[in-house]
Amino acid sequence: AAVYYRQTFAAHCEAPVERYVCEPVTPGLETKAAGPSATMRERMEDMVTKQQAVIVRALEEVEGRKFTVDKWHRKEGGGGITTILQDGKVFEKAGVNVSVVHGELPPAAVAQMRARGKDFDSNGGNVQFFATGVSLVIHGRNPNVPTFHANYRYFEIPDPNNPEKPLLWWFGGGADLTPMYLEEEDAKHFHSTLKTACDKHDPSYYPKFKKWCDEYFYLKHRGEARGVGGIFFDDLDDRSPDELFAFSSECAAAIVPAYLPIVLRNKDRKFTKKQHEWQQIRRGRYAEFNLVWDRGTKFGLHTPAARIESILMSLPLTARWEYMYEVEKGSLEEELQEVLKNPREWA
Amino acid sequence: AAVYYRQTFAAHCEAPVERYVCEPVTPGLETKAAGPSATMRERMEDMVTKQQAVIVRALEEVEGRKFTVDKWHRKEGGGGITTILQDGKVFEKAGVNVSVVHGELPPAAVAQMRARGKDFDSNGGNVQFFATGVSLVIHGRNPNVPTFHANYRYFEIPDPNNPEKPLLWWFGGGADLTPMYLEEEDAKHFHSTLKTACDKHDPSYYPKFKKWCDEYFYLKHRGEARGVGGIFFDDLDDRSPDELFAFSSECAAAIVPAYLPIVLRNKDRKFTKKQHEWQQIRRGRYAEFNLVWDRGTKFGLHTPAARIESILMSLPLTARWEYMYEVEKGSLEEELQEVLKNPREWA
Repeated sequence: AAVYYRQTFAAHCEAPVERYVCEPVTPGLETKAAGPSATMRERMEDMVTKQQAVIVRALEEVEGRKFTVDKWHRKEGGGGITTILQDGKVFEKAGVNVSVVHGELPPAAVAQMRARGKDFDSNGGNVQFFATGVSLVIHGRNPNVPTFHANYRYFEIPDPNNPEKPLLWWFGGGADLTPMYLEEEDAKHFHSTLKTACDKHDPSYYPKFKKWCDEYFYLKHRGEARGVGGIFFDDLDDRSPDELFAFSSECAAAIVPAYLPIVLRNKDRKFTKKQHEWQQIRRGRYAEFNLVWDRGTKFGLHTPAARIESILMSLPLTARWEYMYEVEKGSLEEELQEVLKNPREWA
Repeated sequence: AAVYYRQTFAAHCEAPVERYVCEPVTPGLETKAAGPSATMRERMEDMVTKQQAVIVRALEEVEGRKFTVDKWHRKEGGGGITTILQDGKVFEKAGVNVSVVHGELPPAAVAQMRARGKDFDSNGGNVQFFATGVSLVIHGRNPNVPTFHANYRYFEIPDPNNPEKPLLWWFGGGADLTPMYLEEEDAKHFHSTLKTACDKHDPSYYPKFKKWCDEYFYLKHRGEARGVGGIFFDDLDDRSPDELFAFSSECAAAIVPAYLPIVLRNKDRKFTKKQHEWQQIRRGRYAEFNLVWDRGTKFGLHTPAARIESILMSLPLTARWEYMYEVEKGSLEEELQEVLKNPREWA
C-alpha cells in the first residue's frame, strides 16, 4: 500500500506548476520573500500562496477542469485569493483559500486573546494585527472519497516602534480527514504522512497534535468525532519563528501527498443509493461542526465585514438531516460510527 | 383573498380531533389542568399538548399520511412528545414537538438568567426549574410552500417553600414565515391572522412583537432576515400569568389558521428545476440561522444530555451551499432577497 500511495503521488503531483494561481495579494511578493530583509509576514504569505497553486493544480489534474479564481480586496486592509471548483465529476466542492489580512484589532478580539493568555503592552493605543494563511476543504463526489480539510496560518501583532520584532506572534494549523466509510489503509497513510512531516521537527509533535485534533474536531452534541482526525495545533510560539515556519511549510507541503492518493484510490468505486444517502447525512454533520463548533468559522461569522463566501466555502454543496437516522447493526455505516465514537491510533 | 383563506381553513381544520396524540407527559393531565387547583404548569402543558394534536391532525389531513409519534423520557426530569413526518408529498419535513422538562438549573444557566435581568433569591440552595412548550418547523416540498416555525413556551422557577407562587416565571414564543418566493397575499394573511390574535389582548403587542421578530430572525452575517417575519416575544411577565396564558393560548390556536391555507394555496403549483435549486439554497440559510444564531438551538446543543434529535428536528431534510450564488436581476429570486434585506409592514 505504501508503494501505491508513493507512486500515485509521483505520477500526479510532481509536475512543475506556475508559482501562484494569480498575482499575490502583496505586490512583488516573491522577490520580497526571497530577499535578505524578508519579514515572516512575507515569507509566510509566499509559502501559503505557492502551496495554494500546488494544491489547486494537483486537484485540477484529477478533475480535468480548472478552478475558478477570485481575488478579493478587504477594505480594512489586505485581501485574499479564493479558488473554487464546484459540481465536478470527482469533487463535489473544493475550495482553497489564501487570505492576507491586516488592520486594527477590535477590542473584543483583544480581550479574547488576553483571556487565552496572550498578553502584550499596547501602550493604550489601537492594536494592529496581521494574519495570513491557506485554508482548504475538499468534498468528493463519491461517498468513498473522504472529505479533507487543512489550514496553516500565521498571526502577528506588530510593534509600531520596532518593525523587526512583533509584540506577539504565533503559528497555527492542521489537517484532518473525514471519511464516510472507514478505510484503514487510507487512515494509516494519511496519519503516517503527517507524522513523518512532524517527526522531522520534533518527535513530540505528532502525538501531541494528533490528540489535539481528536479533541478539537469533536461534535460535543453528538458525542462523536468529525472524522478520523489528523493533526491540529494553535498558538505555537515556543521556539523560534524560523523553526516554526519550517515546520508549517513542511506540513503544508504534506497536504497533497497525504490526501490526493486517497482520492485517486476511491474516486471510481461503485456506490449504492444508500451510500449516497449516508454521505449526505455525514455532510450534515460536517455543516453542524463548522457552524456550531469551529472557532475560525464562528469568529468569521461574528466579524463585521468579513468575507462570508470565503468563510462558508467550507460547507458541503449538499447536506441532509433525517430525524433519528440510525445505522444498521453490523453495517459499514456502523463501523464508521464506531471509530468516530472511539478514536484510534493510526501511526 | 380573505374569504379564500377563511373557507380553506374551515373546510380543512375544524374537524374534531382527539385531545392528545398520545398519553401526555404528566399522568392524568387533562383532569388536573381542568381542576380548581390547577397550576400554570399543568394548564400550559395541557394547552400545548392539545395544540400539538390539532396541528398534527391538520397536517396529516393535508398530507394523507400519519406522523410518527415518539414519546421520550428525560432522565433528569420530565420528557416530551416528538411527532414527525418526513419525505412526504406535501411536506418534506414537518416536526411538532412538545417538551415538559424540569430539574436542577446548571449554575451557568442561572448566571445567564441573572445577566438577562432575571434576579431571584435562591437562598444559596440548588435552583429548580420547569419549562414546557410546543415547537414546530414545517418544510414544504414545493418551493412555493413557505417554511413555517412556531413556538410557545412557559418557564418557571418554583419556590420550594410556596408551591402556589413561583420565584420567577415568564412566557415566550412566536411564529414566523420563510417563503422562497414572495407572495404578498400570503404574507398579509399570515401577519393579519397573528395581528388579530395579538389585538384581542393588547393593541401594542403586534407592532412590538413584529419588530422583535424582524430583529430576532436575522442572519447578521448575511445582512438579511430569515423570511417575512411574524411575531416574537420572550421574558413576558408584565401582567398576570392568567392574562399571559390566555394570550399564549390565542397565539397557539392561530398556528393552523395562519399557516395551513398558505400550504393549500401553493402545494400543487408547478415549479422548475431552478426554483427547486433556489429552495435548496434558502434551506441552507435556514440551517445557518438555526445552527449559528438561534438561542434555543444553541442553548440545547450546549446542554449536556439534551435530546439532540428533537432540537435538530428543525433542520431541513436537504440543503445546499453554493459559492457566490447570485440571483438574476429582475428575477423572482431577487424580489425575495429584496424583502429579506428590507422588511416590510404586512398588517
